[in-house]
Amino acid sequence: MKSHEMKDEGQGDLNVPRRNLLVGAGALAAGMLLTKAGGLLGTAQAKAQAITETWPWPYVKLDPDETAELAYNEWYRVYCGAGVFSSIFSQLREKVGEPYTLIPIDAFIFLEGGMVGWGTICGSNAGANLVTNMIIGPRTAGSDDGMLMGSEIMQWYSDTQLPTYKPKNPRISAEIPTTISNSPLCHVSVGRWMKATGKHLGSDERRDRCARVTASVAHQTVTLLNQWHDGKYRTKGTIPAASYGIQTQHNCTSCHGSNVPMPPMAKR
Amino acid sequence: MKSHEMKDEGQGDLNVPRRNLLVGAGALAAGMLLTKAGGLLGTAQAKAQAITETWPWPYVKLDPDETAELAYNEWYRVYCGAGVFSSIFSQLREKVGEPYTLIPIDAFIFLEGGMVGWGTICGSNAGANLVTNMIIGPRTAGSDDGMLMGSEIMQWYSDTQLPTYKPKNPRISAEIPTTISNSPLCHVSVGRWMKATGKHLGSDERRDRCARVTASVAHQTVTLLNQWHDGKYRTKGTIPAASYGIQTQHNCTSCHGSNVPMPPMAKR
Repeated sequence: MKSHEMKDEGQGDLNVPRRNLLVGAGALAAGMLLTKAGGLLGTAQAKAQAITETWPWPYVKLDPDETAELAYNEWYRVYCGAGVFSSIFSQLREKVGEPYTLIPIDAFIFLEGGMVGWGTICGSNAGANLVTNMIIGPRTAGSDDGMLMGSEIMQWYSDTQLPTYKPKNPRISAEIPTTISNSPLCHVSVGRWMKATGKHLGSDERRDRCARVTASVAHQTVTLLNQWHDGKYRTKGTIPAASYGIQTQHNCTSCHGSNVPMPPMAKR
Repeated sequence: MKSHEMKDEGQGDLNVPRRNLLVGAGALAAGMLLTKAGGLLGTAQAKAQAITETWPWPYVKLDPDETAELAYNEWYRVYCGAGVFSSIFSQLREKVGEPYTLIPIDAFIFLEGGMVGWGTICGSNAGANLVTNMIIGPRTAGSDDGMLMGSEIMQWYSDTQLPTYKPKNPRISAEIPTTISNSPLCHVSVGRWMKATGKHLGSDERRDRCARVTASVAHQTVTLLNQWHDGKYRTKGTIPAASYGIQTQHNCTSCHGSNVPMPPMAKR
């Protein structure tokens, strides 16, 4: 479903008239040449800005297994969100250069633990969305594929026995059980795995499980980006808010049980 | 609480030996001069990368009210996450220039609706964390203040009657009631407000409420960044995962009711 088709769904936030915003974005890019004080920004600055705000970014196909192994090892340096991001951007820095060299990979470490340990969105999902939206671009730049690919990855994450990826060079020898999270949230994903395994948060197994989940999401992200690069990407991503009258995931009963509140709905 | 003090809390993810990582980050920055193929990246690229991966970034104090008004209006263009980000970065692009000019503001539109309409972390919280962590830097670069300021903002967001900010030039004339979310999540924050007001997701009031929440978070973020710039920032931010043996927010009963599961804990 395209975001610009959703005006009648009561969605609101996800309903930007694309052409207006294309004009807006273009005007912004041009306008940034002039500072408020009326001076001209340096040409190098203007050029760099144009590079990072022109979509889609140049992309070359990456090997999903190599990317996953990088992500697995990067988890032990920068954790889930920055791990997914780094595994893809570090390769594209080498193979493409700009604009990938301009983005500070390590700035995304805070995504760990569902954002600074708050257990909200799993960092690997946030990292995947950052990657797809930076490369393909925001929906205002001509394609909904960046956001819908991010949404597709969150649904895949929720429905899949994770981790799917087994590292070539695992850091621990123990078998890592898999679980289905039914949610894109760190707290639910880690909690269900801990309940199934009896392993505590600081255990080597829990840590390696999250490193492997990070690798699994990086693998999936590159698999979809490669399809997109070949012109073969047909999204399975949806915008759940369009169906329920509130921003939400698709399985209300997973948290609410049998007592799901009904949001106020627009009169039709 | 400092992340490097948390080894014994069973935290794991939020426990990076800082000095090791400083060496790692330095080595990465230097190493990026050499591509895998052995060639040298262009000097301009290496320089730009050094600029975005050297922390803290140059910051000048911003006016919280002006920032909030910018964020309020940007919500109607790019919504909550990119709205907070844009209100701060657009000013710093003009007042400072690089590295702010190098980051693609509109790439963060996907944060809307709790990430592509999934209702997870409220985009304004995600946007605030992106801002504080890009400017102050990740905890591996010498200070925990970026992540702890982000955490402090999430706690403030959860505990405060929002929105706090009233726009100078409101888009609608209706009074906008305030509510306390008890959560940093979009779904809970919007849901509680909709329940209290009976307004549906696509209503002008709900949309303006979220624009004002975005403005409120931008105001709070700049207030704290200004304190930090003056050397007066003393964080109230915590890492909830350290207290509960799982990544989570501080109020388990808000979702779980009286039946809060206990995560497996490490033997002491």
